[in-house]
Amino acid sequence: MMNTTVKKVHNYSAGPCILPKEVFEKAAAAVLDLDGSGLSILEISHRSKAFEEIMAKAQALVKELLGAPDHYQVVFLGGGASLGFHLVPVNYLREGGKAAYANTGEWAGRAVKEARSHGTVDVVASSEDRNFNYIPKGFTIPNDADYFHFTSNNTIFGTQYKAFPKSPVPVICDMSSDIFSRQVDPSEFALIYAGAQKNMGPAGATMYLMDPEKLGHTGRKISPILDLKNHAAKDSMYNTPPVYAVYVSMLNLEWLKANGGVRGAEERNAAKAHALYEAIDRLPLFTGTTEMEDRSTMNPTFVLKDASLEPAFDALWKEAGISGIRGHRSVGGYRASMYNALPLESVMVLVEVMEEFSKKNG
Amino acid sequence: MMNTTVKKVHNYSAGPCILPKEVFEKAAAAVLDLDGSGLSILEISHRSKAFEEIMAKAQALVKELLGAPDHYQVVFLGGGASLGFHLVPVNYLREGGKAAYANTGEWAGRAVKEARSHGTVDVVASSEDRNFNYIPKGFTIPNDADYFHFTSNNTIFGTQYKAFPKSPVPVICDMSSDIFSRQVDPSEFALIYAGAQKNMGPAGATMYLMDPEKLGHTGRKISPILDLKNHAAKDSMYNTPPVYAVYVSMLNLEWLKANGGVRGAEERNAAKAHALYEAIDRLPLFTGTTEMEDRSTMNPTFVLKDASLEPAFDALWKEAGISGIRGHRSVGGYRASMYNALPLESVMVLVEVMEEFSKKNG
Repeated sequence: MMNTTVKKVHNYSAGPCILPKEVFEKAAAAVLDLDGSGLSILEISHRSKAFEEIMAKAQALVKELLGAPDHYQVVFLGGGASLGFHLVPVNYLREGGKAAYANTGEWAGRAVKEARSHGTVDVVASSEDRNFNYIPKGFTIPNDADYFHFTSNNTIFGTQYKAFPKSPVPVICDMSSDIFSRQVDPSEFALIYAGAQKNMGPAGATMYLMDPEKLGHTGRKISPILDLKNHAAKDSMYNTPPVYAVYVSMLNLEWLKANGGVRGAEERNAAKAHALYEAIDRLPLFTGTTEMEDRSTMNPTFVLKDASLEPAFDALWKEAGISGIRGHRSVGGYRASMYNALPLESVMVLVEVMEEFSKKNG
Repeated sequence: MMNTTVKKVHNYSAGPCILPKEVFEKAAAAVLDLDGSGLSILEISHRSKAFEEIMAKAQALVKELLGAPDHYQVVFLGGGASLGFHLVPVNYLREGGKAAYANTGEWAGRAVKEARSHGTVDVVASSEDRNFNYIPKGFTIPNDADYFHFTSNNTIFGTQYKAFPKSPVPVICDMSSDIFSRQVDPSEFALIYAGAQKNMGPAGATMYLMDPEKLGHTGRKISPILDLKNHAAKDSMYNTPPVYAVYVSMLNLEWLKANGGVRGAEERNAAKAHALYEAIDRLPLFTGTTEMEDRSTMNPTFVLKDASLEPAFDALWKEAGISGIRGHRSVGGYRASMYNALPLESVMVLVEVMEEFSKKNG
């Protein structure tokens, strides 16, 4: 591999985000030469045997790692989960029908906005009244909705569903920011979709895991490029797929499989979340910004009780090689995104910085 | 850089396709460490200063290399040019309006199909009557169309507009397969769009170069994710862009600028096309499949007059390290895609193989 002498960075970026070092190494090597073919992964045809195998492997790994039913189908499309917000009503909302949505943050709100271009949206639950610092519970999903849509983890606000809502209608979930971080049962969902750039791979691909039996019932005329049934029938090759993003996702899912699968990730993520939240609760200068029971294991958010100390704290974590923990502009404070590939070691560095800061300013 | 001992491949892939070696080397290095930052290009935030500079540079290079008017805007989106086929009518076709299209091949036809989901499409010219082996000329574009759409180069059939149609209405062009290969005047176009995976970069990004004054006149309510005005206003950051595809495109456009710009590419492409077409016309075993005057410099297509000789010819070019010249299933025969980064040396290898084959079988 290349020889590089670079400083150690603890990358807490909210996404695109850290991936395992081995994945970066294989991903870099393939840009020069894919598996001894003499060709770069960037210059091979998406119709080549080599890429067909990569796509098939990525699709199979998604199903295997999540434990999806055999008949479920996986496609990888470009355009981001934001395009997914659009594809959901186009593919699942009947002409004149109604969709139920839970609004728990920025991206959940954007999903509502896109759906409203296509029909009636019933926002059956919202945590907007307290700047999205909790997950609504005990709400009712109407029987006559075409589907219920929610966002399993809210990257910006740092909240996460610990139990999924029970629904009398098909459930669709945007799992962009916590897919592969904990065990779920895909058979409970008509569609799970996720932008790759957190726990799956680099930015540029969005994965759709779907129950094909739940598709094609809207009575709408759907443009081919927006039709999930079409993409599934063409096995993600209706048009040129985002080749490299799919390739790196495949490498990363291989890594996950070799490292304990989703169960292993879940255990590591629980340990990291425990370490950081324990420090937030123990150290009097800090306080978490969300309801305790809804705390995200992926994106812990916290503030300094005395905001005037922020410059001193910022200097300290920057010196320690920590990157990317300033909170989103709509929340302020701090957000320490801890996706699958962030090592516990990086979390311990942050905890030590928080302790050192507390000693100096306590 | 990494040490690799790989056989020399002459990559004629129709796209994704060959890019310059220096681009692959920089693109691989950045996957391990972006410019000494200690972070991979795959793990940095799209909101980081580093990526904002990459995006700005890519946008500026598109305008500089093509000579676009100052007020034109550039965005990079995921989803492929096929999503572009959908965005065109959504953003330019008035409710109840009419669009004019020229149908010159597979992708032009798909663009027509997507537009028909949104209103009336007037196919003002077509070469379908002779399996798309020529470019229609002398057709009339109606004054009352909202826009005229055409495909400048037809990858599958090997035809290319040598002069662009004169139009009384705004012109929109899918330049996916010949952008940056020859000089054009962007001020003649309301919108030029192109999938990255030929002359721009890897698969995964689509570039839209647009006159902002021609946007926003349809009276339609446009979903934010499909609204080109929205993406331009947010400078390609409305949602997470395809970071790596934009980065590699930027590297490739830097390479093009340092190597004579579009004028330099045009000269090299003319020399390559001349060399191959001269051989096709000179050697009696071969014949071109398109009208001479409409021959593509990017995707020359040809057949063996005696198809029973194909296995012998195939064995010969494979032995020479040539890859990817079998024609598309809808045409058969051969297609030698010769994008910007394919060296003249690779063309000469193919010509020599054709000559050797002719001697043996002539």
